[in-house]
Amino acid sequence: ACFSTSSSMAKSKFEYVRSFETDDSCLRNCYIVVRLDGRNFHKFSEQHKFTKPNDSRALGLMSRSAHSVMAEMEDIIIAYGQSDEFSFVFKRTSNLFKRRASKLMTHVASQFSSSYVFHWKEFFREQPLLYPPSFDGRVVLYPSNRNLRDYLSWRQADCHINNLYNTVFWTLVQRGGLTTTQAEDRLKGTLAADKNEILFSEFDINYNNESAIHRKGTVLIWEKRDETVTKRVKLPNEEEKEVPVTRSRRRVQDHHCDIIGDQFWEEHPDILEDDNC
Amino acid sequence: ACFSTSSSMAKSKFEYVRSFETDDSCLRNCYIVVRLDGRNFHKFSEQHKFTKPNDSRALGLMSRSAHSVMAEMEDIIIAYGQSDEFSFVFKRTSNLFKRRASKLMTHVASQFSSSYVFHWKEFFREQPLLYPPSFDGRVVLYPSNRNLRDYLSWRQADCHINNLYNTVFWTLVQRGGLTTTQAEDRLKGTLAADKNEILFSEFDINYNNESAIHRKGTVLIWEKRDETVTKRVKLPNEEEKEVPVTRSRRRVQDHHCDIIGDQFWEEHPDILEDDNC
Amino acid sequence: ACFSTSSSMAKSKFEYVRSFETDDSCLRNCYIVVRLDGRNFHKFSEQHKFTKPNDSRALGLMSRSAHSVMAEMEDIIIAYGQSDEFSFVFKRTSNLFKRRASKLMTHVASQFSSSYVFHWKEFFREQPLLYPPSFDGRVVLYPSNRNLRDYLSWRQADCHINNLYNTVFWTLVQRGGLTTTQAEDRLKGTLAADKNEILFSEFDINYNNESAIHRKGTVLIWEKRDETVTKRVKLPNEEEKEVPVTRSRRRVQDHHCDIIGDQFWEEHPDILEDDNC
Amino acid sequence: ACFSTSSSMAKSKFEYVRSFETDDSCLRNCYIVVRLDGRNFHKFSEQHKFTKPNDSRALGLMSRSAHSVMAEMEDIIIAYGQSDEFSFVFKRTSNLFKRRASKLMTHVASQFSSSYVFHWKEFFREQPLLYPPSFDGRVVLYPSNRNLRDYLSWRQADCHINNLYNTVFWTLVQRGGLTTTQAEDRLKGTLAADKNEILFSEFDINYNNESAIHRKGTVLIWEKRDETVTKRVKLPNEEEKEVPVTRSRRRVQDHHCDIIGDQFWEEHPDILEDDNC
Repeated sequence: ACFSTSSSMAKSKFEYVRSFETDDSCLRNCYIVVRLDGRNFHKFSEQHKFTKPNDSRALGLMSRSAHSVMAEMEDIIIAYGQSDEFSFVFKRTSNLFKRRASKLMTHVASQFSSSYVFHWKEFFREQPLLYPPSFDGRVVLYPSNRNLRDYLSWRQADCHINNLYNTVFWTLVQRGGLTTTQAEDRLKGTLAADKNEILFSEFDINYNNESAIHRKGTVLIWEKRDETVTKRVKLPNEEEKEVPVTRSRRRVQDHHCDIIGDQFWEEHPDILEDDNC
Repeated sequence: ACFSTSSSMAKSKFEYVRSFETDDSCLRNCYIVVRLDGRNFHKFSEQHKFTKPNDSRALGLMSRSAHSVMAEMEDIIIAYGQSDEFSFVFKRTSNLFKRRASKLMTHVASQFSSSYVFHWKEFFREQPLLYPPSFDGRVVLYPSNRNLRDYLSWRQADCHINNLYNTVFWTLVQRGGLTTTQAEDRLKGTLAADKNEILFSEFDINYNNESAIHRKGTVLIWEKRDETVTKRVKLPNEEEKEVPVTRSRRRVQDHHCDIIGDQFWEEHPDILEDDNC
Repeated sequence: ACFSTSSSMAKSKFEYVRSFETDDSCLRNCYIVVRLDGRNFHKFSEQHKFTKPNDSRALGLMSRSAHSVMAEMEDIIIAYGQSDEFSFVFKRTSNLFKRRASKLMTHVASQFSSSYVFHWKEFFREQPLLYPPSFDGRVVLYPSNRNLRDYLSWRQADCHINNLYNTVFWTLVQRGGLTTTQAEDRLKGTLAADKNEILFSEFDINYNNESAIHRKGTVLIWEKRDETVTKRVKLPNEEEKEVPVTRSRRRVQDHHCDIIGDQFWEEHPDILEDDNC
Repeated sequence: ACFSTSSSMAKSKFEYVRSFETDDSCLRNCYIVVRLDGRNFHKFSEQHKFTKPNDSRALGLMSRSAHSVMAEMEDIIIAYGQSDEFSFVFKRTSNLFKRRASKLMTHVASQFSSSYVFHWKEFFREQPLLYPPSFDGRVVLYPSNRNLRDYLSWRQADCHINNLYNTVFWTLVQRGGLTTTQAEDRLKGTLAADKNEILFSEFDINYNNESAIHRKGTVLIWEKRDETVTKRVKLPNEEEKEVPVTRSRRRVQDHHCDIIGDQFWEEHPDILEDDNC
C-alpha cells in the first residue's frame, strides 16, 4: 500500500518528461503530403513470387490498403500509388490531429500496414504471407496548387519511366530469352523511344496499349454518388409503405489516368482549393 | 514514343519538388524514444471482447509485435509496454536512418501494426480480427540517463495507477455486483491505500500478489545467451564427427519487474551508455 | 611546438560537434517575414524623453535603420513599421542564406540594431543615447498572397488601434488636464467611434487629419527611378564630349498609406509574385 | 469614424495569421550555444585599418560587446570569443524566453551589434566607424558536458591554428619583406612545428611568449567578488556613522587561458551543471 501511494506521487514527479516533446505541427494553408515506401520490397516481392514486371494482386492490395487509409481520414483529398509506394494528400485547410506531422504520418503508416496484412488473403489467396512487411513514411508540405500538382506529376512520371523500363526488361528476359544481365546491358543508355521501338519491332507490343494501371498508377479520389435505398415510411393512416430514398454519398473511387495534364483537374475541380486563400 | 520522351524530361522538370522536404534528424547524443498508442482501443477492445481488467491475449500480442520491431532495429536497447501503448528507446549513439525522426517513427509504427495483424491468430485463436487496427506514434528526445529513466518511470507509474484502479473497479463490478456507475462513484476520490484496502478487506485480494505483467507492464531488453549447437566437423583422417559448438547470441527477453528503482539498472549495466560522452 | 601540433590534431577531433547543428531552412515558395520588436522600449522611450504620443525622431530612426537592412538584403520586397516594431518580407523565391531562418533573422536583427545606434545622432542631435538598445526577432512563413496581405493588414490595423488610443489618451492628459489614471478610466470600454468623438467635440481634432505616418505607419518598397547623369564620351575624332545618360535605378521609398485595401497593391503590382507558381 | 470601427474589427479578422508562427523552443536539459560571426569582416577590418595580425582595439571592442550581452542575460554561464566571432553558452536549465531559439539568438545578435557601435569610440578613438557592421548568429544544442567542452575546445583550437598562421604570415610580410603571395607560398603545406620553427630561427620569436589573448582568445565567466562599500547608518542615539559593508557581487571577468585541458574546469567547478540531472 505504501508503495502504491508513492507511485502515484512518483508519477507527478516524473511527469516533467512530457515537456521534452516538441511541437511539430505543419505550416498552415499548405497541402500535407504523406508518402509511404515499402521497406526491402525487392526482397519481399521475390519471396512472395510477385509476377514480373507487374503483379496485379500486389497492386490491388496496395490500393485496398490505401482505401482503408482514406476511409479513416476524410481530409485526404487525393492519393496516388505506384509500385510499392503510395502518397496521401491532406487538404490545405485540414486541422486533423492539429496538423501534427508525427501523428499524421504514423497514423497513415500504421493503418496502411495493418490493412495490408489484413487484406492479404483477398488478393493472394493460397500464397501465404511469410512475415509482416513494413512501410516507412515522410511528410512534405506544398504551399501552392502548382507545387502539389508538380509533386503528383513527379510521381507519375517516375511510374512511367520505371514501368516502361521494367516492361522491356522482362519482355527481353521472358520472351526474348535473354539473361537478366544481358537484358540490362541491352537497355543501358537507351531512351524511351528506343525502348518503345524494341517492344514494337521485336515483340509486336504497342506500349500504349499496355494496361493503364501499370502505365499510370492508381489515383484515388472521393466521388459523390447518388444511392437509392428503400425505406419503410409510416403513412398518416397508420399503414406502412416502402418508398425509394435517394441520397448522395461520398465514396473513394479508383482511376488510372493521366494526372500530369490539365484534363483530369478540369474534370475534378473540387479536389484543389483556391490558391487565393 | 514522343510522350515517353517528354515524360522522362518532365520528371526532371518536376523533381524540384524534392527540395520541399525538410531535414528532421534528431539531435545527436540523445536517447530517441518512439512511443506508440493504440487508436480508439477502448472501442476495439470491446468489439473484440477483451477480458477485464486485463486481457492476457492482448498483452501477449502487444509484446509479440514489440519483439518484431526490436528484431528489425537492433539499435533499440529497451522497450516498455503496458495496456495499448509501447515505447521503444534507441541508443543515444544510434545512426539508424541518419536519425531522421520521420523514418524512425513510421518504421516502428508500421512494423508494429503489420505484426499485430500477422500474429493475431496465435493469441486470439477463434476470435476473429474484425478490422485492421491503428497505432499512432511520436518521437521524444532525452539528453541524459536521468531523463530517460524518469520517462520510463513515468510510464510504469502510469501502468500502476491505471491497473490498480481497473483491478478494483472490475472486482467491484464482477464480484461485488455493482453497476459500472456505482463502481465509479465508489472510487471517486480514493487514494491508492483506499483501493488496496477495498481489495483486501472486501474481496480478500492482496494487490501485490496480482500478476506482475499487469502490475509492472512488460520490459524488453537484449540478453546474451550461450547457445550450444552440434556441428559436423571434418577430421584430418577424412572422417566426420559431431562436435558441440557454443556461441553467444543476443535475443530479446521479456521482464515484468520494477524499473523505477535502481536494482534493475544495476543488474543490467549495459543498457544505458555513460552520460559523460 | 608539440602543443601546436596536437592542437591542430585536436581540432579535427573536436570537429564532430558541428554535426549537432540542425538545418532550419524555410519551406520553399513561402514568403518569409522577419519581425523585430524593441525590447523594453517603454522604459527606453521614457529614459530618452520621447514625445507623446509619437516621437518623430524615433520613427525616423526606425525607418532609417530599416532602409539600412533593405539595402543589405535586396530580396526584401516590402517592409512595414510602426511604433517600436518593423517587419521585413522576403520574396517567396528568395534563396538568400539558403533560406536558413537563423541566418535571416539574426542578420536582420543585427543590421537593424547597429544602424539604430549608428544613425542615432542624425535624429536625436544633442539628446545622447544612454545605452545600446536591443530588438528581438522572429520568423514567420506565409504560403499565399492572401496570407501575406492579411499579415500586413494585421500589423496596420494594430497601428491604427494603438495610435488612436494614444492620441486621445495624451490629448486628454496634455490638453484636457487629466491625470494618466483619469485618462485611462475615461477610455475604458470606449469604441473607436467614441474616441473620434472625444477628439472632435472636446478638442476640435479630426483624427483623419492627423499625420499619415502616425495613423498608417511606414511602408518601404523598392522603386525604379530614372536617373540622368552626364558622362564624358570619346568621339571617333578623338574629341571628348559630355552626354546625358539615363538609367533606371532601384531605390527604397517610404510610404504612409493604407495597405489593407486593394488600391496600394494595384498600384504596385510587382511586389507580390503570382500565387500560381 | 466608420473606418476606425471596422479597422478594430478587421484586426481580429486578420489575427489568424498568428497561427502561422511555429514553436521553436530548444530541447530541455541541453546547453544552448549562440554563436555570432562578423559578416564580411575581412573587408570591414581593412576599411577600418585593423593592425595585422591582431588588432587589440578590435578584440577589446568584441569583448566589451560580449560583456554587454552577458549583463543582459544572466543565464549565460560562459562566453568565448576569438577573431570576429563570439559564442555564448546558456545553462542547460535556463528557461529564458521559454527557450525559444529565435528569441535567444536575435536578442544576443541585436544586443551585441548595438553595443559594438555604442562602444566603438572607447576603443578606436579618432578612427571613425564608417558604417554599421552586422553579425549573424546560430543556435546549437549540446546534451552533455563532454559535448559542450568539445565545442569550446573546437573553437579554441581554431583560434590557435588561425593565430599561429597569421602570426607567421604577417611576420614574413612585415619583417621578412615577403609579398603576401610569397608568404602564402612559403606556408603552403607547413605543419605547426614548421611555423614555430620559422618564427624562432628566422625572427627570434618564441610563439608561446606571444600574448595570451591572441593565442587563447577570450573567456568570459561570472565571478563572485566581495565588495566593500561604506554606508551611513543611523545609530540609536540619532547620530549617523559610516560603516563598511561587505557583500558578494557577481561580475563578468575576462580570462585568456587554456580551456581545452581539465585545469580551467577544475578551478571553476560551478560553470557546468552535473550531467546526471
